[in-house]
Amino acid sequence: MPRQITAFSNPLVKRIRGLREKRHRKEERMFLAEGLRILTEAREAGRLPRYVFFAAESAHHRLVQELVDAVEKAGGEAIETDRDILHKLSGKDNPQAVVGVYDEFATGLDAVDRDRAGIWLVAQSLRDPGNLGTILRTGDAVGAGGLILIDDCVDPFSVEAVRASMGALFTQQIAHARWPDFLAWLRAGPGQLVGMSLDTDVDYQAPHYAAPTFILVGNEAQGLPDDYAAQCDLLVKMPMLGKADSLNAAVATAVMAYEVLNQRRRSQG
Amino acid sequence: MPRQITAFSNPLVKRIRGLREKRHRKEERMFLAEGLRILTEAREAGRLPRYVFFAAESAHHRLVQELVDAVEKAGGEAIETDRDILHKLSGKDNPQAVVGVYDEFATGLDAVDRDRAGIWLVAQSLRDPGNLGTILRTGDAVGAGGLILIDDCVDPFSVEAVRASMGALFTQQIAHARWPDFLAWLRAGPGQLVGMSLDTDVDYQAPHYAAPTFILVGNEAQGLPDDYAAQCDLLVKMPMLGKADSLNAAVATAVMAYEVLNQRRRSQG
Repeated sequence: MPRQITAFSNPLVKRIRGLREKRHRKEERMFLAEGLRILTEAREAGRLPRYVFFAAESAHHRLVQELVDAVEKAGGEAIETDRDILHKLSGKDNPQAVVGVYDEFATGLDAVDRDRAGIWLVAQSLRDPGNLGTILRTGDAVGAGGLILIDDCVDPFSVEAVRASMGALFTQQIAHARWPDFLAWLRAGPGQLVGMSLDTDVDYQAPHYAAPTFILVGNEAQGLPDDYAAQCDLLVKMPMLGKADSLNAAVATAVMAYEVLNQRRRSQG
Repeated sequence: MPRQITAFSNPLVKRIRGLREKRHRKEERMFLAEGLRILTEAREAGRLPRYVFFAAESAHHRLVQELVDAVEKAGGEAIETDRDILHKLSGKDNPQAVVGVYDEFATGLDAVDRDRAGIWLVAQSLRDPGNLGTILRTGDAVGAGGLILIDDCVDPFSVEAVRASMGALFTQQIAHARWPDFLAWLRAGPGQLVGMSLDTDVDYQAPHYAAPTFILVGNEAQGLPDDYAAQCDLLVKMPMLGKADSLNAAVATAVMAYEVLNQRRRSQG
């Protein structure tokens, strides 16, 4: 039976609201996700929140009821609340009717089973949470296994990244590693490391990509460090006809990931 | 000879700072762009700011000097200032050393010469300024002619959109139209209108695209309205293998635009 909270001063509300800050997320090892669509996708992927807050007026929505039942059955807590509290939790002027609080996932490389998928995305020092979430969403679409974050990336559990991922945070595996540890792990098994770089003449449509393909994108402003690029099996570049000679990191990753997917589709066809 | 401004209360600083709000941009018909790289690309594309603010410590940078000279020669004004003022103008904690204030461009469809490019991007009710800027940047990369905004889109001259475009705002043509006016203009000349939709079984790699191709992307949350989709020459869909069955709007546009570009590259090869 859901309890009700409508007081701003409620300690749980204060604690959950704090999860919008990285420091508190790391202390609590929990993060926020908003919206019935994303929470339902998480549920379908086998992830249930520890806490779910929902607006009283959406209590009779079938998916909300199913979610609340599932959370309570799993030992979590469902909390009926109002728009003001949801606004306070989400920080959005127009808050979603449902907010979930999830335990952070483990992000060790040791949990990554590379044979599970033919495409893996790898991002180095990615700074923008929107880009990170968008790359997760693309990974979901192309059937990638997950996203491996190298060095100091933005937190994948930040509210902005979770939001931009549109639920893919729950379907994609997330790992985090320093570059030398990633390389050692990668070279201990099969895998082609393909770096996207402006310092190459190899057109991204020229190579035949071998599975599992690890698509590596560098930092938004700097691109890949030279010594990282030197360790790749291949460096490739999209054609760029314009003045700017660069693409958004999430866009470049997607164009590249669809090329690999299209090659696989042709070879199966 | 640049004048110096270091007082927050300076009326020009207050006025320029106001351009971060749409209301003031529309009144003044001017907008902000930040960063030497973007301002230099604008200059190379033939666009000079009416005002250029630069940090005193970057006054001896060659590109800053060239920019200042060009602005003054063209009758604009160069203003030497400090980091605090630049922070105030840009709203960023770590402001760029140069901020330019440009006259808004005309955005009528009548200025669009469709024969100038084989790809045009069209976005309907796009809401996110980052997506809009990213689509402009992609347009620059694929050699598109420009971006046509349909119905109520986010302002392409917002600080966030200009930033995300990485200078492509100055190399891509921007037009704005209501849907019926766009359709009337489109049908008065050659052009294939290709809508991206989830409600089709046509794989985006199946058709042969005819130039000029107009790639139409819908609102981030709603996609294209059904009656807009019905007016397209073709509806296509990217394969999506995951749970979410959707892509970020800027990502979908880029994957589609590169498919058209790749077809053109093959037919020329």
